Amino acid sequence: MRRKITTGLLFALATATPGIAQAAIDPETKVALDTLWVLMAAFLVFWMNAGFAMLESGLCQAKNAVNILAKNFIVFAVSSVAFWVIGFGLMFGNGTSLIGMNGWLLQGADNSPAMGDAYSGVFASLNWTGVPLYAKFLFQLVFAGTAATIVSGAVAERIKFGSFVVFSFILVAFIYPIGGHWAWGGGWLASRGFLDFAGSTVVHSIGGWAALAGVLVLGPRIGKYMPDGVVRPIPGHNMTSATLGTLILWLGWFGFNPGSTMAADPAAISLIALNTSMAAAAGCLAATAVAWTLLGKPDLSMVLNGTLAGLVAITAPCAFVSVGSSVVIGLLAGVIVVYAVLFFDRVKIDDPVGALSVHLVNGVFGTLAVGLFATDGGLFFGGGFAKTTSQLIGIGAVGVTTFVLTLAIWLALKATIGIRVSREEELEGLDIGEHGIEAYTGFAHSHQEMSAEVI
Amino acid sequence: MRRKITTGLLFALATATPGIAQAAIDPETKVALDTLWVLMAAFLVFWMNAGFAMLESGLCQAKNAVNILAKNFIVFAVSSVAFWVIGFGLMFGNGTSLIGMNGWLLQGADNSPAMGDAYSGVFASLNWTGVPLYAKFLFQLVFAGTAATIVSGAVAERIKFGSFVVFSFILVAFIYPIGGHWAWGGGWLASRGFLDFAGSTVVHSIGGWAALAGVLVLGPRIGKYMPDGVVRPIPGHNMTSATLGTLILWLGWFGFNPGSTMAADPAAISLIALNTSMAAAAGCLAATAVAWTLLGKPDLSMVLNGTLAGLVAITAPCAFVSVGSSVVIGLLAGVIVVYAVLFFDRVKIDDPVGALSVHLVNGVFGTLAVGLFATDGGLFFGGGFAKTTSQLIGIGAVGVTTFVLTLAIWLALKATIGIRVSREEELEGLDIGEHGIEAYTGFAHSHQEMSAEVI
Amino acid sequence: MRRKITTGLLFALATATPGIAQAAIDPETKVALDTLWVLMAAFLVFWMNAGFAMLESGLCQAKNAVNILAKNFIVFAVSSVAFWVIGFGLMFGNGTSLIGMNGWLLQGADNSPAMGDAYSGVFASLNWTGVPLYAKFLFQLVFAGTAATIVSGAVAERIKFGSFVVFSFILVAFIYPIGGHWAWGGGWLASRGFLDFAGSTVVHSIGGWAALAGVLVLGPRIGKYMPDGVVRPIPGHNMTSATLGTLILWLGWFGFNPGSTMAADPAAISLIALNTSMAAAAGCLAATAVAWTLLGKPDLSMVLNGTLAGLVAITAPCAFVSVGSSVVIGLLAGVIVVYAVLFFDRVKIDDPVGALSVHLVNGVFGTLAVGLFATDGGLFFGGGFAKTTSQLIGIGAVGVTTFVLTLAIWLALKATIGIRVSREEELEGLDIGEHGIEAYTGFAHSHQEMSAEVI
Repeated sequence: MRRKITTGLLFALATATPGIAQAAIDPETKVALDTLWVLMAAFLVFWMNAGFAMLESGLCQAKNAVNILAKNFIVFAVSSVAFWVIGFGLMFGNGTSLIGMNGWLLQGADNSPAMGDAYSGVFASLNWTGVPLYAKFLFQLVFAGTAATIVSGAVAERIKFGSFVVFSFILVAFIYPIGGHWAWGGGWLASRGFLDFAGSTVVHSIGGWAALAGVLVLGPRIGKYMPDGVVRPIPGHNMTSATLGTLILWLGWFGFNPGSTMAADPAAISLIALNTSMAAAAGCLAATAVAWTLLGKPDLSMVLNGTLAGLVAITAPCAFVSVGSSVVIGLLAGVIVVYAVLFFDRVKIDDPVGALSVHLVNGVFGTLAVGLFATDGGLFFGGGFAKTTSQLIGIGAVGVTTFVLTLAIWLALKATIGIRVSREEELEGLDIGEHGIEAYTGFAHSHQEMSAEVI
Repeated sequence: MRRKITTGLLFALATATPGIAQAAIDPETKVALDTLWVLMAAFLVFWMNAGFAMLESGLCQAKNAVNILAKNFIVFAVSSVAFWVIGFGLMFGNGTSLIGMNGWLLQGADNSPAMGDAYSGVFASLNWTGVPLYAKFLFQLVFAGTAATIVSGAVAERIKFGSFVVFSFILVAFIYPIGGHWAWGGGWLASRGFLDFAGSTVVHSIGGWAALAGVLVLGPRIGKYMPDGVVRPIPGHNMTSATLGTLILWLGWFGFNPGSTMAADPAAISLIALNTSMAAAAGCLAATAVAWTLLGKPDLSMVLNGTLAGLVAITAPCAFVSVGSSVVIGLLAGVIVVYAVLFFDRVKIDDPVGALSVHLVNGVFGTLAVGLFATDGGLFFGGGFAKTTSQLIGIGAVGVTTFVLTLAIWLALKATIGIRVSREEELEGLDIGEHGIEAYTGFAHSHQEMSAEVI
Repeated sequence: MRRKITTGLLFALATATPGIAQAAIDPETKVALDTLWVLMAAFLVFWMNAGFAMLESGLCQAKNAVNILAKNFIVFAVSSVAFWVIGFGLMFGNGTSLIGMNGWLLQGADNSPAMGDAYSGVFASLNWTGVPLYAKFLFQLVFAGTAATIVSGAVAERIKFGSFVVFSFILVAFIYPIGGHWAWGGGWLASRGFLDFAGSTVVHSIGGWAALAGVLVLGPRIGKYMPDGVVRPIPGHNMTSATLGTLILWLGWFGFNPGSTMAADPAAISLIALNTSMAAAAGCLAATAVAWTLLGKPDLSMVLNGTLAGLVAITAPCAFVSVGSSVVIGLLAGVIVVYAVLFFDRVKIDDPVGALSVHLVNGVFGTLAVGLFATDGGLFFGGGFAKTTSQLIGIGAVGVTTFVLTLAIWLALKATIGIRVSREEELEGLDIGEHGIEAYTGFAHSHQEMSAEVI
């Protein structure tokens, strides 16, 4: 996305599709085809909101389910306004190599779907895609919403609803667009050759860094890490939800990655769709095997997180690598995610749903994987260290910037309106305290869930 | 839908997309593109059946969940037969300005996808869209099914399953097509300039009026309105379902509104998709804010219903208004829905899921909003009262007709096969009484749900 | 799918769409259109994994929910690897009339999207569709995954997780491709005129035969068939899940059947989409009516399975029959499925979710229905017995082969790693035994579910 597919890939694809040259399609038809594709892809990515809502609420406790559902639901509404008013202009508006400075409220000149040199308007960084401005915006909006949703799971079960809403607005209006501008909005990282096709860094790592900052400021849930060093598992309340959510996300990723072509280019979208799915499958199998070996049983939450790890990791390289490489990237992501989950627990960073292991760690790995596995110029394909170096610079620059800025926001929120619910509310559950209702009226609770109260 | 986009909008869109003229696409290609779009949109609207099933069952009690799921599931099967045999012919078949009188069982001459004057067949009112007849029918069928589904939620937790099935058949076969013919089938309202792009009135208000008639004949659930004037809240049993259902509906609306172009017109579908989503987001935020202020907490059911209110309200005007107007319409809808919910409880009209507040009230508001906000000729854009007057006539004519006819049907059903389950069955739950199974075998119930029995 | 639509259908469609000739679309545009369609359809079929997961887990007991979810989730990952490495080559690779012998790991020459005689490569059996190879593979992969998923429900609540994973790999890598090659991969059944448009036999019956073999080797669940001859109902734990799952499957079938054109042919995909939906609706209504008559109440699981029966039955004939015939086929399927469920219980074949009645029995019926109802050459349309005979040969050949081979595999697995969990584990639930977690932590269980323990 945001970059035309590089020459290397076009070369690879041309080999596979002799006699087919996209350029031959009549321009009016191409706009219609591309718009159809971009909108359908945007709808699929929008659908990921349901995936995150089901996955994250399923992996948390029943007493906090309403709160998580409400957070994951409203965050897209908040993102819609924030990105419309400010974020899109900062990210894609004409400006400097550091930030965009045009296009607030989608105002300003724009002659989309005119492309390339024929484009004249305030969003020149998106002149490589030939769809109407509103399609460009909707597609980018659902990506921005994804970054914000990622935070929700990591800070779940103890964050104040209102503070999360405020943080989400700031993230999507001001912070997400910074790294986004650097990589996709015509900023300095794009100029240096940084490649992140669909957003392992721009979407997933930014969401992950913001989540990490939040988790550090919030601290762990009461009773998670016992004084005697024992890490107490707090199992999710609804594995049906969690499984459904992961399947929704897998489906949504067929919009996320192939849609990031922002053009109905047959060879490219076929390759990217297949790479995406094969990496997911490989991540699933690897995480299952590792969890089975390490923990003695095939833990379902690891099966699910392994899949998501594969999806996150293939997001940056999906357009630049072969199907075989996608399988390898997925396998590695599946291994990494299990160890990452164990690592975060060891250092007492409490992430109820594994969002950091999935989105941050594998967002970094996937971005790096472009440098390693790219068919054209990757380290493992004889391209030397140039690409890998570019990727590391991008990972570092976006990571440090996002982490520092979001840490400052979280600390400011903590010092003002507060970010953590009271001890009583956390023990009782946030659903009653924050929303006044419970998720499953009429069902009896076992004592298992209540055990936190005795701590 | 059902009307080519008006000159005003085309003018507005042309401004935004210089150099792009749909007409230039080769005719064979255009049929393929349009059919792809219409079918994908139809699939998305079909998917709304799942949204209504999850939303409505989630907002009701566990003891009635099977009944609501069964109602919402079978209603589309019933609608399919009713609309195929009779309804589609009444709505779109050639006839008078009052009713269609051709095309039962999809029989009769038809040379679709031929368009305009080249079309010769019995469904001339749909000659503005260039897709095969079966695509036209499938797309219209999923709309008809939606109108019927809306009724299900309002009459939930006390209606007999069999009576609901009979009512749904009559609604889709005979009543929905009347208002539908007037507005979309070449009837007198269309001739008078009534504009309802995707069905705020034709689908949502018709469903809402039918539901209101049903609720009035049925009466409130036992224990809802106490003798001492207290309104007893009866919380839903599964907010996970309700949230998922709302996200499904939001996704489905990307088919409902943009698909109503029934053509893959890039500028129009991009605008409509964005307007739809922004109104949903605005409705969500406004309802959350109002509920938070009035009720002290951000009630999740209000967050969800606010979103749906925005979606219903933007359904009529989505093709005629700007993105900014869509946000305003969504905000107003979000405010209206909260007060409407409180109003219906005050007058003891018992609607378990808020269907009247969402679909009827905001269906009316959205239809009116065309007159107020239309970029071309709306009251707020200097167009005077002409458009608003047309809209009010349509709202009134369709509303009175639908309400009177459905009231007669409900009363006739009550006098014959009966429409309400026995007191014992209602207290015990309809799942056992009507279906012989319960929704969640193996789960223990708390006393909370049983409390209705002590009344 | 796999066969160009027969002359008869093209004739019928041409009648309905005068002046429209697909061939007129410019070739580059057609590749883009077809790829868009095939990929969107593949995504919808992928989504059926969620449908099966929700349906099957919902119809089983809560204590086995994690196990079923994990099986249904991982099976697509396993299928992805198995079909990529081996299965696709066996099914579609150039070879003999009995089996393909090229294209492991998608390697080998291929100049897709070149079609017909212009195609040169190792997958000549797919040269009738003009999309890139990776799109062909992804579309076929989601079908292979469906066949494997069907098995999961029938063997639920007593099979070892590891053994199911191994069986699934073998099924997709080696067995599914055999019948698949015969019918769709250029094998001997295709040469004999066997018609199975989207896979009533190739996908659903193959899955069904494999499931039947498994059920026979596994035996019924403890307590299902009492010594005194009583058949004990073991109700599902979550009818919300089951209903959602069925709606997901209905939606997914809009990819399954119309997508099997593997081309965005407007008339064909419109007809097929409508036929699919009308058969589903008819199956739903017929099963509801029969169940209501036989059992006294409209049992929701019958409502759902009737719908699925209609969908399975229309899968083979969807492109060859009229809308009216589709309704008749759906009605018959809905009747058949209820009696089939009762039959399997009578002969003590324990299928917790009705997979055999839906996929095997109606897969057979649907395949036969091509011979009976085909507009061009069907027995009921004056075509004599030729088509029906071809269909019966295909049904028999694929059925016997699949049943014998899968029976051998199940017996081999039983003799080596074992296929059934211990009595203690089955009574306690497979979630704890196989996965170490439960599905709904925090919810109290009623004694109802525990009653199996007293047996």
